[in-house]
Amino acid sequence: MLNLEFKGRDIVSIEDFSREEINYILNISRSMEPLASKGSDMLKGKILATLFFEPSTRTRLSFETAMLKLGGAVIGFAEAEVASVRKGENLADTIRTVENYADVIALRHPLDGAAKLAAEFSKVPILNAGSGSEEHPTQALMDLYTMQKEKGKIDGLKIALVGDLRYGRTVHSLAYALSLYDIKLYLISPESLKMRKEVIHAVENKISVVEGTDLEEVIPQIDVLYVTRIQKERFPDAAEYAKVKGTYKIDLKLLKNAKKDLIILHPLPRLDEIAAEVDATPQARYFQQVWNGIVVRMALLALVLGAVK
Amino acid sequence: MLNLEFKGRDIVSIEDFSREEINYILNISRSMEPLASKGSDMLKGKILATLFFEPSTRTRLSFETAMLKLGGAVIGFAEAEVASVRKGENLADTIRTVENYADVIALRHPLDGAAKLAAEFSKVPILNAGSGSEEHPTQALMDLYTMQKEKGKIDGLKIALVGDLRYGRTVHSLAYALSLYDIKLYLISPESLKMRKEVIHAVENKISVVEGTDLEEVIPQIDVLYVTRIQKERFPDAAEYAKVKGTYKIDLKLLKNAKKDLIILHPLPRLDEIAAEVDATPQARYFQQVWNGIVVRMALLALVLGAVK
Amino acid sequence: MLNLEFKGRDIVSIEDFSREEINYILNISRSMEPLASKGSDMLKGKILATLFFEPSTRTRLSFETAMLKLGGAVIGFAEAEVASVRKGENLADTIRTVENYADVIALRHPLDGAAKLAAEFSKVPILNAGSGSEEHPTQALMDLYTMQKEKGKIDGLKIALVGDLRYGRTVHSLAYALSLYDIKLYLISPESLKMRKEVIHAVENKISVVEGTDLEEVIPQIDVLYVTRIQKERFPDAAEYAKVKGTYKIDLKLLKNAKKDLIILHPLPRLDEIAAEVDATPQARYFQQVWNGIVVRMALLALVLGAVK
Repeated sequence: MLNLEFKGRDIVSIEDFSREEINYILNISRSMEPLASKGSDMLKGKILATLFFEPSTRTRLSFETAMLKLGGAVIGFAEAEVASVRKGENLADTIRTVENYADVIALRHPLDGAAKLAAEFSKVPILNAGSGSEEHPTQALMDLYTMQKEKGKIDGLKIALVGDLRYGRTVHSLAYALSLYDIKLYLISPESLKMRKEVIHAVENKISVVEGTDLEEVIPQIDVLYVTRIQKERFPDAAEYAKVKGTYKIDLKLLKNAKKDLIILHPLPRLDEIAAEVDATPQARYFQQVWNGIVVRMALLALVLGAVK
Repeated sequence: MLNLEFKGRDIVSIEDFSREEINYILNISRSMEPLASKGSDMLKGKILATLFFEPSTRTRLSFETAMLKLGGAVIGFAEAEVASVRKGENLADTIRTVENYADVIALRHPLDGAAKLAAEFSKVPILNAGSGSEEHPTQALMDLYTMQKEKGKIDGLKIALVGDLRYGRTVHSLAYALSLYDIKLYLISPESLKMRKEVIHAVENKISVVEGTDLEEVIPQIDVLYVTRIQKERFPDAAEYAKVKGTYKIDLKLLKNAKKDLIILHPLPRLDEIAAEVDATPQARYFQQVWNGIVVRMALLALVLGAVK
Repeated sequence: MLNLEFKGRDIVSIEDFSREEINYILNISRSMEPLASKGSDMLKGKILATLFFEPSTRTRLSFETAMLKLGGAVIGFAEAEVASVRKGENLADTIRTVENYADVIALRHPLDGAAKLAAEFSKVPILNAGSGSEEHPTQALMDLYTMQKEKGKIDGLKIALVGDLRYGRTVHSLAYALSLYDIKLYLISPESLKMRKEVIHAVENKISVVEGTDLEEVIPQIDVLYVTRIQKERFPDAAEYAKVKGTYKIDLKLLKNAKKDLIILHPLPRLDEIAAEVDATPQARYFQQVWNGIVVRMALLALVLGAVK
């Protein structure tokens, strides 16, 4: 028997979840779709705190929207500078304060391990909204949800992750999650931005992984093209960034050789790695992904607060 | 037959609206007064996103108050620095993201044309909360509403716009709106801050316009004195600002020659262009204007979301 | 007969309140405990504006949580830089604007007297959320509430205030409030951070006050140890700060000589004046204090808005 009890649980790392648990979250997400359209009072009287120690408007607004659509309320801050942190408070004390205000906390933090530490101290569930360069579990879940919704199922898919596979926290969580399914994974990046060895090792035990630098070569074979931004702000060295930015550019020319039912995803924001001309193609699914992020976060809020089982 | 369908419509420029449409908005605004006092559930389950790419506490809080008084909820940001923009995202992508979160978007942006661009990309209505130095349509509507509420009707009024008529976006939208009524318009400013030629041309075809620099001369004739702040932050040159700041000062001495039932308006914030001694006079109406801003924005939210017809 | 009418009243200074009034607020606070756990619709349709001209995440989130738990809504800003203040608006105009938006205003301001000024201009109640270095009445009320809740009653207690008694606004309001009860007060600080003469004079007329620098000496006698952070940001001179920081350190060694039922309070955030090892002791009550802050602020909101009598 599986333990599918989510009430009171932290969502810190995608690695804490089994395939069955992830499927369960995706099922609950699907059941949230009508509530996301019409609104609901499921979490009336509950408060979400969004503690964003680094700015991420997109993720913050997604969590807040999810909570509001379930009838709950939101408090929080959008930047560390606004916070008590300025006065030198440590994260454990901040958490032990905010757990008095809120029923659940969504935490974004620049340091690896911050969400884990917060979960150790917190009496209320912690939802990791991105910590350091390692983890972004709710993004991985919305990516999986999008693939399942768009392609019917995840098993059997050929999926390419393209761009910055080294610094992007999104792709680490996603690669781990995908390794729970029967898929083939292509990792396409410049040499200097290859996925970290420890992630690859953990993944290639379970699924077939192909590393490479040439996107044109793999484009005809794949079902899902997952593009990431090369994140200037995570490069220690500006010259290194200059060398690799613009390596991959998804445009109509590239897509000529793609499957008709390819879907293109991107965690956003994008710079110019996907040309504007692609937006109007049926393959472009990166804005639909945003909506899916809301329903997945609604599911997580409802689950950890015990409002659905 | 007029097309008075507002559901789904963008409020980008006051020039998009006929006199009949504006009168209709003013009528709906009047019907919002009791709801503004007591609260309402008219927009329960709806979400407003306030995307303020430049700070404007006054306008942002007015929109948020309007939404909350109608029972809706609010997400958003108060400054560009907090936003994804830092990571280099373009406005079209931001809009195509946020339209997934919100049922309506209030946008403030430093660039001319930003609201128009946003409206082209957005599936949900865009309310222009000030873009560049050109447009501020909801301010113009609350100015009209205040004149009508205070003076019974707009037709027949003699109205002076005073101060910075060049850089102030408020007065451009207001001048266009007033040109739809049978009024006489006095434009009083320093030479270097005269209203732009294209605005004057568009307006003087329809109504009688008098340009001048001397406020004392016109003060005995006017019914509405609309004062604007000379906005330091919009001057390319600090020396130019020093020359003209303090040109006009509304005080009790000036008002001695004014009509008893003159009303004084100001979009706020003011610096010292209206003396504090004026606040206690019956002519001072600039704080009542703030309340009117809420009811007008309630009307616009209810209209574009199809909650009133 | 006492005047216990709180509807429409400002909460500017703890000195405006009698012992009977404070006891009344503490009683109402107690009645808020179940609503703080379950939520309520007592203030549905009402709006709180949190105007924080200096950042204080803790206090701001506490007020917002209190309002949300009573079913009300919140608007506001977290930092002066976001506000109209940047454009040079004075506080009186800001208040006369925001009173149109909100039913009650919580104001945090760096200047002494700001809350008093705001209250003079405002039509809606002002709750002082900290002004200058003088006043923080809601903090004092939550401190009293915590002592009463933890120790049964305030009369008869021996209470030590420790740390920065000169610049900390919390301790001024608290000392005044405690002087209304039959307590013995120990004021323990470095010489350069002694409590200001005028506060001591006002207090020692009413209660027994002992000033000193040695905490170890008094620790065996006291019932309440109220620790404050030595606030770097309030020191005119960095060298002065360096001299006194770390003067007092509450650790297990110190507590060996303390009463078993001592309680340790702290307005938070703390730096290292309380060692982490103390957190697990039964004496540590500083995180419970945070919860008490919510119920006290719920009581104040409900009282000044006339929702309880």
